[in-house]
Amino acid sequence: MIIFVRILIIMFEQHPHIQLIDNYIATLKLPDTPAHLYDPITYILSLHGKRIRPLLVLMAADMFGNKDKEQILPASCAIEFFHNFSLIHDDIMDKAPMRRGKQSIHQKWNDNVAILSGDALLVKAYEELGKSPAAKIPALLKVFNRIAAEVCEGQQLDMDFETQNNVSEQDYIEMIKLKTSVLLGGALQLGAILANASELQQNLIYDFGVNLGIAFQLQDDYLDVYGNPETFGKQVGGDILSNKKTILWIRTQLSATGADKIEFDTLLQDETISNIDKVNRMKKLYATLAADQFAKEVKLHYMSLAYSKLEAIDLPAISKADLLQLAQSLMNRAK
Amino acid sequence: MIIFVRILIIMFEQHPHIQLIDNYIATLKLPDTPAHLYDPITYILSLHGKRIRPLLVLMAADMFGNKDKEQILPASCAIEFFHNFSLIHDDIMDKAPMRRGKQSIHQKWNDNVAILSGDALLVKAYEELGKSPAAKIPALLKVFNRIAAEVCEGQQLDMDFETQNNVSEQDYIEMIKLKTSVLLGGALQLGAILANASELQQNLIYDFGVNLGIAFQLQDDYLDVYGNPETFGKQVGGDILSNKKTILWIRTQLSATGADKIEFDTLLQDETISNIDKVNRMKKLYATLAADQFAKEVKLHYMSLAYSKLEAIDLPAISKADLLQLAQSLMNRAK
Repeated sequence: MIIFVRILIIMFEQHPHIQLIDNYIATLKLPDTPAHLYDPITYILSLHGKRIRPLLVLMAADMFGNKDKEQILPASCAIEFFHNFSLIHDDIMDKAPMRRGKQSIHQKWNDNVAILSGDALLVKAYEELGKSPAAKIPALLKVFNRIAAEVCEGQQLDMDFETQNNVSEQDYIEMIKLKTSVLLGGALQLGAILANASELQQNLIYDFGVNLGIAFQLQDDYLDVYGNPETFGKQVGGDILSNKKTILWIRTQLSATGADKIEFDTLLQDETISNIDKVNRMKKLYATLAADQFAKEVKLHYMSLAYSKLEAIDLPAISKADLLQLAQSLMNRAK
Repeated sequence: MIIFVRILIIMFEQHPHIQLIDNYIATLKLPDTPAHLYDPITYILSLHGKRIRPLLVLMAADMFGNKDKEQILPASCAIEFFHNFSLIHDDIMDKAPMRRGKQSIHQKWNDNVAILSGDALLVKAYEELGKSPAAKIPALLKVFNRIAAEVCEGQQLDMDFETQNNVSEQDYIEMIKLKTSVLLGGALQLGAILANASELQQNLIYDFGVNLGIAFQLQDDYLDVYGNPETFGKQVGGDILSNKKTILWIRTQLSATGADKIEFDTLLQDETISNIDKVNRMKKLYATLAADQFAKEVKLHYMSLAYSKLEAIDLPAISKADLLQLAQSLMNRAK
């Protein structure tokens, strides 16, 4: 199984469209000055994320039959620029010193540079969107604006949740939907619009992306605790150590009573507990309260919802194979 | 003369279009939640700036013959939203505690709230732009993106200049052009696009706005030193006391030699000099080096350039009267 998964991951990262996206971004000529405005943009784009969001735009357009990449790449790039803009500003707000293994922009320069270069990158995202075929621009802009506003809402909810003690599982899922999943769905919808898909088909591919994104985030919460340290790529237990409100944490907080509740509060507050003890005792609590099973079930729910949306799209299965494979590679990664 | 000026100012602030803009903004239904995202937006819009930028969109559309306000108001509102977005983020960067006589957003809430609500307001600006007639959206978006990027560049140059010692008059004018004037020109151009003006006519009205904006900013520099405290509305000499690099400051720095140079450096560095002495001695220096005359001449140059562009527009004088009157009321204010 592991070998199969690795093959899928390699296939995704070596998808020929990724090269197209990289080439497109590389040929864009950003201004040289003011250096403090444009150098940080060049920097974050060079850190080279997985380019999954722009890939989704191209794959959806492919699926619905527009193979003319010149028409699709600007919107694809707009999505990648938007994603990077949101990372720059989120890193300021979260005081995150690192991004993709390198210094974040506010850390390498300062907060002001990060605010303003983020703003400029958001504008550049719209500039790219505006290079799409003119007849499509009004519809593209409408979807792009909707998801952009929702991503801001999701980030605000995430920050609000840090100081709230009554976050429900449903609140949490709504937050991750807005903060991360609508952008995946929106990327697919942009591709569908560019390929003249009907509104019904657009909504199906959008819902596929949103539900896949929620499942992916829930899986991320799960793998942070139960993943294989060698393949997960992050410190296992990191979320537990930082008291991060994940689906496991929220489920435990809401369902713990009596001695379990005392244990939970102790683990959150007692700073004398060693890291390894804290992770092990929290895992035990998760098991007692079946929070791990709950997380897996909810993930499965959204995963199957995603697949049902993909299935409902009015195209032959062969057209959907590429996107199905991408979804599977995302959902099977690094167990 | 003063009476004439006051009448003009009253006419501008009571321009019937202002009420249309206010009504349009008031009927927009912003979401209620997340409150920390949308309350600050409602707050800054309620502080009620002069609405000059959205007014320019409507006036240009009027001038070129589109009187259908339903078609123009969304782009007009987009310009107002963009302007307010830039104020929110600039106030963080400049650590400005006040805005329009009230607390700035980062001061009333915090930096994170100001960053994210600013982002959301920028997205809302594009949302408004997207409500324009579909056939016009590609052209509107292109101009909007260009000026939005330039405003970011201008803000970065302004911040860069704070620590640079070799800023020339031309550098300064380029900075104020980008930071404030292109938005005035761009507002007019959006109105022209919505009224089907030719590219030549669009460029003329844009250039009118940009040059008027530069003249206005140069006048602001001048009035900060030489204005009538009763009508100027700000503390006269404030720029001198804060060592702000205005056109007068830069001209003086570049032309002072010998004893004048020593006096200039002393005024900048010696913190034992009283406020009133600092203002008076700097004014004397400005007079000695004719920096005040220089500022007036450069302002006049851009003002006459602006009027020549307005004159060149291929419309009867009567159509231009409203815009000419606005320009005059701006250039004659609070002497």
